[in-house]
Amino acid sequence: MTDSPAPAGVFISFEGGDGAGKSTQVRRLADWFAARGREVVVTFEPGDTALGAQLRTLVQHGEDLDPRTEALLFAADRAHHVTTVIRPALARGAVVITDRYLDSSVAYQGSGRALGAEEVERLSLWATQGLLPALTVLLDLDPVIGAQRITRSLDRIERAGDEFHRAVRDAFLARAGVDETERWLVLDATRTPDELHGAITARVEQILAVASAAGSGADDDAPRDAVVVEHTEVRP
Amino acid sequence: MTDSPAPAGVFISFEGGDGAGKSTQVRRLADWFAARGREVVVTFEPGDTALGAQLRTLVQHGEDLDPRTEALLFAADRAHHVTTVIRPALARGAVVITDRYLDSSVAYQGSGRALGAEEVERLSLWATQGLLPALTVLLDLDPVIGAQRITRSLDRIERAGDEFHRAVRDAFLARAGVDETERWLVLDATRTPDELHGAITARVEQILAVASAAGSGADDDAPRDAVVVEHTEVRP
Repeated sequence: MTDSPAPAGVFISFEGGDGAGKSTQVRRLADWFAARGREVVVTFEPGDTALGAQLRTLVQHGEDLDPRTEALLFAADRAHHVTTVIRPALARGAVVITDRYLDSSVAYQGSGRALGAEEVERLSLWATQGLLPALTVLLDLDPVIGAQRITRSLDRIERAGDEFHRAVRDAFLARAGVDETERWLVLDATRTPDELHGAITARVEQILAVASAAGSGADDDAPRDAVVVEHTEVRP
Repeated sequence: MTDSPAPAGVFISFEGGDGAGKSTQVRRLADWFAARGREVVVTFEPGDTALGAQLRTLVQHGEDLDPRTEALLFAADRAHHVTTVIRPALARGAVVITDRYLDSSVAYQGSGRALGAEEVERLSLWATQGLLPALTVLLDLDPVIGAQRITRSLDRIERAGDEFHRAVRDAFLARAGVDETERWLVLDATRTPDELHGAITARVEQILAVASAAGSGADDDAPRDAVVVEHTEVRP
């Protein structure tokens, strides 16, 4: 892919509880792509836009919000993030790696709280017009171990009880298990960073090989279709 | 109703373009209820909460937002408004009069912009858990006349072109015409303020009489069900 004049954009998300090592693996995967000559956009949710930062403050440090208000604010953040950051980057052929995406909303808002996972997912799919990653890496970790790894001060959601974080972990695992898009790579986050990085890049190379084979008949000067999953059923 | 120990809450919204005289009629109706001994909560959307004020600033004076982001922010504002202001007031038997409610979102975001009216409505009904007013007064006015009546400086949405405001007016009228809940009272906003007030209070008296008759067999010490419409199909 390195020498292609118009590589296809690739969309990858990392999910998992706090302390699972997402930041480290995001950075290492970004370096891996960059070493192969790819433009890489590293981003995160919630909040990696000017609007998003304000929303993040409202949700995480403001007054207690009812679950629907919170879900709608996260969905607004995501819609803005997709429109202004993710889709433009994919359109120009970049690799987009995001630390958390809609699966976090489904796991956090849909399982531990008052809303159903299905309604939170429908809301997010409407917000993103159905954009899903080609690969979602779930760094799975016992939340008790995750909490021990975190040294900085915690925000409101991070401070929620153990039971909540166990429910979130179960929700991530259940979601990865039943999802029909085959975009999930579930890894045991207690493995070493090197082992995790190796497993992730092995899967990425498979995805790139498939995408490259699919695009080999196309005009090399034209931008290829981004390597993403477009969910078809999108309604609010 | 005045002497009832536990009056039922009543939920009323005012809709229409800018300059149609909503503020005046809201205030006069509030005074009318207060003179009859009722607690009245006068409110407005978007923005009549601390969170809402911040969202209002984001949407109306910030950067250009894509239609989904904007719709989700308005829906978040509405969910918060209903949860923290409207439902608590109705539960204690107050009259709630709001200057704009979800019909404004449907008319403004669903007609003049890129989203369908139906999806904007579904989003709002999910946000409010189906809460609709018992009465929605539409003050209908040619937007050219409305613009002439406005003397203060205009925000981003108010500045949108004539064609947009005509589409919004048509959307309000179409919505009032097809709505099956009979909650609409459509009035020609070029009539005098006294005439409009008279028409509104006549309709309110009908609604109160029906509610009073329906509640007359109930225990007078128990709070009555609020006079609202609960929409049954609520999904995101």
